[in-house]
Amino acid sequence: MSKKYVYLFSEANASMKNLLGGKGANLAEMTALGLPVPQGFTMSTEACNRYYEDGKVIADDIVEEFYEALSQLEKINDKKFGDSSDPLLVSVRSGARVSMPGMMDTILNLGLNDVAVAGLAKLTGNERFAYDCYRRFIQMFSDVVMDIDKAKFEELLDDVKEKKGVENDTDLTTDDLKLIVKKYKALYIVEQGEEFPQEPKEQLLESIKAVFRSWDNPRAIIYRRMNDIPGDWGTAVNVQAMVFGNMGDDSGTGVAFTRDPSTGEKILYGEYLMNAQGEDVVAGIRTPKMISELQDTLPEIYDEFVAIADKLEDHYCDMQDMEFTIERGKLYMLQTRNGKRTAAAALKIAVDLVEECKLSHEEAIMKVEPKQLDALLHPTFDPNALKEAKPMARGLAASPGAACGKIYFNAKDAAAAVELGEQVILVRLETSPEDIEGMYAANGILTSRGGMTSHAAVVARGIGTCCVSGCGEIMIVERNKTMTADGRVFHEGDYISINGSTGNVYGEAIPTIAAELTGDFGIVMGWADEARTMKVRTNADSPKDAIQAIKFGAEGIGLCRTEHMFFEEDRIPAMREMIVAKTLDQRVRALGKLLPMQKKDFKGIYEAMGERPVTIRLLDPPLHEFLPQEDADIKQLAKEMMIPFDELHLMISNLHEFNPMLGHRGCRLAVTYPEIAEMQARAIIESAIEVAEEKKIKGVPEIMIPLVGEIKELKYVKDVVVATAEKVIAEKGVKIDYLVGTMIEVPRAAITADEIAQEAEFFSFGTNDLTQMAFGFSRDDAGKFLDDYYNKKVYESDPFARLDQKGVGKLVKMAVELGRKTRPDIKLGICGEHGGEASSVKFCHDVGLDYVSCSPYRVPIARLAAAHAAIEAKNAY
Amino acid sequence: MSKKYVYLFSEANASMKNLLGGKGANLAEMTALGLPVPQGFTMSTEACNRYYEDGKVIADDIVEEFYEALSQLEKINDKKFGDSSDPLLVSVRSGARVSMPGMMDTILNLGLNDVAVAGLAKLTGNERFAYDCYRRFIQMFSDVVMDIDKAKFEELLDDVKEKKGVENDTDLTTDDLKLIVKKYKALYIVEQGEEFPQEPKEQLLESIKAVFRSWDNPRAIIYRRMNDIPGDWGTAVNVQAMVFGNMGDDSGTGVAFTRDPSTGEKILYGEYLMNAQGEDVVAGIRTPKMISELQDTLPEIYDEFVAIADKLEDHYCDMQDMEFTIERGKLYMLQTRNGKRTAAAALKIAVDLVEECKLSHEEAIMKVEPKQLDALLHPTFDPNALKEAKPMARGLAASPGAACGKIYFNAKDAAAAVELGEQVILVRLETSPEDIEGMYAANGILTSRGGMTSHAAVVARGIGTCCVSGCGEIMIVERNKTMTADGRVFHEGDYISINGSTGNVYGEAIPTIAAELTGDFGIVMGWADEARTMKVRTNADSPKDAIQAIKFGAEGIGLCRTEHMFFEEDRIPAMREMIVAKTLDQRVRALGKLLPMQKKDFKGIYEAMGERPVTIRLLDPPLHEFLPQEDADIKQLAKEMMIPFDELHLMISNLHEFNPMLGHRGCRLAVTYPEIAEMQARAIIESAIEVAEEKKIKGVPEIMIPLVGEIKELKYVKDVVVATAEKVIAEKGVKIDYLVGTMIEVPRAAITADEIAQEAEFFSFGTNDLTQMAFGFSRDDAGKFLDDYYNKKVYESDPFARLDQKGVGKLVKMAVELGRKTRPDIKLGICGEHGGEASSVKFCHDVGLDYVSCSPYRVPIARLAAAHAAIEAKNAY
Repeated sequence: MSKKYVYLFSEANASMKNLLGGKGANLAEMTALGLPVPQGFTMSTEACNRYYEDGKVIADDIVEEFYEALSQLEKINDKKFGDSSDPLLVSVRSGARVSMPGMMDTILNLGLNDVAVAGLAKLTGNERFAYDCYRRFIQMFSDVVMDIDKAKFEELLDDVKEKKGVENDTDLTTDDLKLIVKKYKALYIVEQGEEFPQEPKEQLLESIKAVFRSWDNPRAIIYRRMNDIPGDWGTAVNVQAMVFGNMGDDSGTGVAFTRDPSTGEKILYGEYLMNAQGEDVVAGIRTPKMISELQDTLPEIYDEFVAIADKLEDHYCDMQDMEFTIERGKLYMLQTRNGKRTAAAALKIAVDLVEECKLSHEEAIMKVEPKQLDALLHPTFDPNALKEAKPMARGLAASPGAACGKIYFNAKDAAAAVELGEQVILVRLETSPEDIEGMYAANGILTSRGGMTSHAAVVARGIGTCCVSGCGEIMIVERNKTMTADGRVFHEGDYISINGSTGNVYGEAIPTIAAELTGDFGIVMGWADEARTMKVRTNADSPKDAIQAIKFGAEGIGLCRTEHMFFEEDRIPAMREMIVAKTLDQRVRALGKLLPMQKKDFKGIYEAMGERPVTIRLLDPPLHEFLPQEDADIKQLAKEMMIPFDELHLMISNLHEFNPMLGHRGCRLAVTYPEIAEMQARAIIESAIEVAEEKKIKGVPEIMIPLVGEIKELKYVKDVVVATAEKVIAEKGVKIDYLVGTMIEVPRAAITADEIAQEAEFFSFGTNDLTQMAFGFSRDDAGKFLDDYYNKKVYESDPFARLDQKGVGKLVKMAVELGRKTRPDIKLGICGEHGGEASSVKFCHDVGLDYVSCSPYRVPIARLAAAHAAIEAKNAY
Repeated sequence: MSKKYVYLFSEANASMKNLLGGKGANLAEMTALGLPVPQGFTMSTEACNRYYEDGKVIADDIVEEFYEALSQLEKINDKKFGDSSDPLLVSVRSGARVSMPGMMDTILNLGLNDVAVAGLAKLTGNERFAYDCYRRFIQMFSDVVMDIDKAKFEELLDDVKEKKGVENDTDLTTDDLKLIVKKYKALYIVEQGEEFPQEPKEQLLESIKAVFRSWDNPRAIIYRRMNDIPGDWGTAVNVQAMVFGNMGDDSGTGVAFTRDPSTGEKILYGEYLMNAQGEDVVAGIRTPKMISELQDTLPEIYDEFVAIADKLEDHYCDMQDMEFTIERGKLYMLQTRNGKRTAAAALKIAVDLVEECKLSHEEAIMKVEPKQLDALLHPTFDPNALKEAKPMARGLAASPGAACGKIYFNAKDAAAAVELGEQVILVRLETSPEDIEGMYAANGILTSRGGMTSHAAVVARGIGTCCVSGCGEIMIVERNKTMTADGRVFHEGDYISINGSTGNVYGEAIPTIAAELTGDFGIVMGWADEARTMKVRTNADSPKDAIQAIKFGAEGIGLCRTEHMFFEEDRIPAMREMIVAKTLDQRVRALGKLLPMQKKDFKGIYEAMGERPVTIRLLDPPLHEFLPQEDADIKQLAKEMMIPFDELHLMISNLHEFNPMLGHRGCRLAVTYPEIAEMQARAIIESAIEVAEEKKIKGVPEIMIPLVGEIKELKYVKDVVVATAEKVIAEKGVKIDYLVGTMIEVPRAAITADEIAQEAEFFSFGTNDLTQMAFGFSRDDAGKFLDDYYNKKVYESDPFARLDQKGVGKLVKMAVELGRKTRPDIKLGICGEHGGEASSVKFCHDVGLDYVSCSPYRVPIARLAAAHAAIEAKNAY
């Protein structure tokens, strides 16, 4: 049997969503449930894919099926296309696997032609209505199917209105509308060189093709990328008999949810309009009424609708979003689907459905999208205060949340103000690693330059601080400590507010509300923890981060970067002294100054984490990042360090790298300067011993060696670490356990993971770097071409946000298999930013990682995503 | 049975080279042949590896075997260690699988102590000789085994000589030597805190350990890296009874080759000294005699030696390098091995041995090291002229060969002088891509800055031009057009000569002699071509390179880079115009100017190559490489292009990349600017058609898309290329064939090669980039730490010179297998610099590539290496 591409609503059901799209499958399901649905058929998503494969034509076998369905449709509805007394009219609507509202095209009133318009007039007894439909259909078809500029039709309409001296479309007479139809049809000939198609079947086939094409229009591509929808899913097309809500006072149309989509409250929630078509409800020309008022207007219809709504919610075990039309006192259901809802509503509905005994815990948590939680994890503006506020500029929504504070123009001033208890927004042209201290301290960060992957954006997301980047409308003069926006000049200490979820910047103080993980959120998270098998750790570099992460449920630290610690003002001099040291002695002396500082950091983190595991990564970035680049700063440093300026300048320029990403960093630093690794190992072990003795907290530090590509390199550094650790243990006379492992972030490490595992007690996948090196482009530079790649459909999503499973994932899988072959009990985790992204978390579960680690604010997302992954895997059996 | 670690010479043979080292295996073989060899035993290379594994101790089981061998040795020689009348004395010598002359330690006269010295005196009747041996032994043992500074012993010796008022050691009396022995033994106590060891077996065990340790001394590590010798081979140690060539006028010692190692001529070639020890032949205090003179001195011994030499050459079927000693009229063989020889001698010997019917063609070519040929492929100085010359400075030997010419200080002047027929040396502080034209034109390149991987060095090696880089002793002032070296000032047009094989720079003109591939070279190459199964292509960007490569036997072009063509002075303006274009129209207009230039290049190359395949790579480098970076140059360009300076400056700084290696380049350029690929595809196809019509040369151009990481990216660019090609073919009405394929140089491409092969008709492995991305370090930056990596034994060889088979090679293998799975007839080649390195060529053969491609000057090396690989693979069955 050859493949079937066209299904009548009566031939399908809700389980066929992948083939028929959400709308089509649900129309079929409602038909099967015996609900009043205008009948029709669905061209499958496979028909769409065939259309593209066959070079944007519908193949003959599919056309044949289509004609067969069409004649069935005429039979079912007992109407004929183009009939002069009771013509069959249809709507043509897209319908992908998941809803992509407004992204693709729709055509209504299809089937009208010079004969059928008369039939419609006769049927409705309303000639004006019939011609109004016809002129709308001509315009819609010409626009959507033939790509004729809509404005040209609007012009003709305006001409007639002007000549008639009327203002509204509704003031046009039947004759006016007939004239307009005539003009429209003539315009069609002018544009297309042929008559407006009179054959309804031809109209329909062309419309279907246009909907298929709209799957690939630019806004659909962008929407898919934003929502991680694969391009090869394709869209189905639904052809459905028209019903009219605008046939008089016993007709109407509306939309409703079975629960409040903002709060999740269990009440029928929606709007309707009598004597109106669907568009009118949305268009806002007339004010729709609350659905509850329908009870008074049409009590029987209302009761019928409520019964249907209950039935549908019970049937789907989820809150439904429905569209209906009433034609001359008869109710028709045009759509139902699981309704979109806010994060808060999603949680409440999940909890309520469990309480109502409709869902199990596992079923309930599958109803909450992990990604959605993000909105609940950051401070937000007080909604009342926000109502009055108007943004004065808009930048990129670089890191979510809302913040309000006094502006400061450099990291030092910002940090100082925070010390004094101020709320602070750090304002910079762009940030650099030297600004870290101020970035950590500030409540929010605003930059006028740099994109979504700029330093400011990346760091802010990592630490969960709200950030608006690349806000070019604001002119910042750092040396004057001023910024100008919307004609106003702001000085240091002035209040502004920023929203990192929208990119909006406000020239005033707007109070914020902190995030809370209580109530429904806590309940759902509890269920998620029951369901998941993978641990969730956090990336945290400070006790403050660690405490926040524990509040969000982190079970350990998967990545504690040690370099940020060295950027702080009281530490960077010793760091710089270490870097410019000319002899081993000098370097060891400088490292000696850093040792107590590192110990203090580690003790704080151990105390915050209790006995949870803590993975500490040895120094990673190239050393030049710690040195000043501007002559003035170099002069200052030379003076402080008592080195001639020229000498220091030469040292710094010798540290310059052509490709810092591929330079002298990671474990390479420890190979050339083992004394750095020695100092860090000493700090890690000494502080663990001290915390064990002083606080009775006995953790097992995991020492992580970064950027390893070859086993001998790992072994060299590991030997240094172990020798130091054993020495410290002997000195202190206290035995503690520790692990030594490595990041897998260089492709060669993944490929030779069987060897690497001989030395590594754990692997942590650094998928940021692994992505850069596997693809061969750096995050900082890829911005120059990634947009072109999205537009040309080469990539569908940002591989830095969503793990590239086909390439990078294959490396991860290879490393997991090779690593386990050598060391079956090797501990495996991920600490790249992917550790907090749902599809990547699922991948990590499926390849068998022990844990994911992500920034504190993504921990709840990862917990829920890990639960989803475990449940899906279980259900797949 | 437990493993055997110690072998008597009588227990082994030549096939055991891996286990016993070359020296040990050959001593055993000579023993088996019945030749007069002082007997002894060999501690195996596995004993050396055990020594390291066990933490630098010799395990008890091995010590036991050692004692057993020792007592056998006493029996065989009928002498006892420490005997007071006829003591057994031995030499202790290292011996790895391949000869590493002078890299490891040797100890002679071992077994002497206070008793044995008297025995030796009695035996030889020469007390002075005995004490001279003893004091030498004490010093040698203390230095080599105990690491006591040799200079301290020399000082004591000098003291005694001063007090006695003598000048030469030979003037010291027996009593003086006894005094010295006394002092030496006291010094040993001072340094070691214990007596000089009197027990010969202890002396011996410590000496063996010292030789094992010497396997890992820094000069041995460097030697191994230079000669691609794996660190895990280990060295064997040979313990052999001493014989003395210094026992009077019927004693002597010498070294000889069965053929002349410089020319290959078939004559016994060597030197000897009567009444001398081995060291004296080399030391140069007395002038050794030609081996032929031995015929007069000791005719019987001479005849015996000649007979042995003939026997050994016949036995090994190769030229032998032998050491012998005559002790009181008896000949002893101390060593034989296949002798090192010059490239010219290697070729002559190979050809002669075939003519003498001793070797087959295949056996003969296995006797020639591919790498060695390099010396024959570049111009050299006229040896007579060189004798008089003294270098005035020395830089890095960056690209081999010799050159002589007038100096010019910028590329433009250099190119202009070449046009006028001058011989030219381009002298620069350092070179940049803008200098390409002058670099191509010059006979040699000299820079005062930059290392072995600087722009000058890399480009020069690629085009086979002699280059000395980083010659810091020379001060160059480019704007004055002067350079100062050794106190002399040179001006534009003055003659100098440079040797890129040694790094020497001469302040005068030294005539050069061109390389020739005639005579023996041609014969051996012919045999190599018979034996090999893999094709050898060349990387060539110009007709000049192509012609040179064909002379060297290239069978096609594996990589024609198109970017160098754009750096030429008459072209770069159009290129820059293209880059700074603000609209598609402007860019297309600028590309229109480049089209005829590209066509001219391609036609020249097609004509030079005849119908051999030519792979042309589309534009690869980031665009900023074509733009000036200095303000003055930008100003000039702004003026030429009639753009405001600020605007151009901003454009250029917007093109800046943080990691250019991982930036907007390769096929990414064609995705963002498909019109560039269109122009290049048009140029490739139009010129192929024109050459087919005008010259009747019908090639099949292979269009190569670089830096692909994802099939959709390849497909996008391929679609542009194919559409253009088909359009051109339709326009011209001439059908020609062409292939479209890709570089595999991004790890993700290797991993997803099954997908990529759906679109690619060929793969060419770009192992330079693949190495950078797999290891995660860039060639330009790795210099900062690679030396530390070699010193710490993390890497043994430069992965950019020798393909890393374990990591990068695994990616290549994976891609080969995946690619062939999808497209069984896919054409596979390599075009990284590894394509001309012997071990990498063998790897390419073994994984089944169709061809390797390398720079023209490496083509003969690759041909021979491919032959070696084919023969080795055949013999492995």
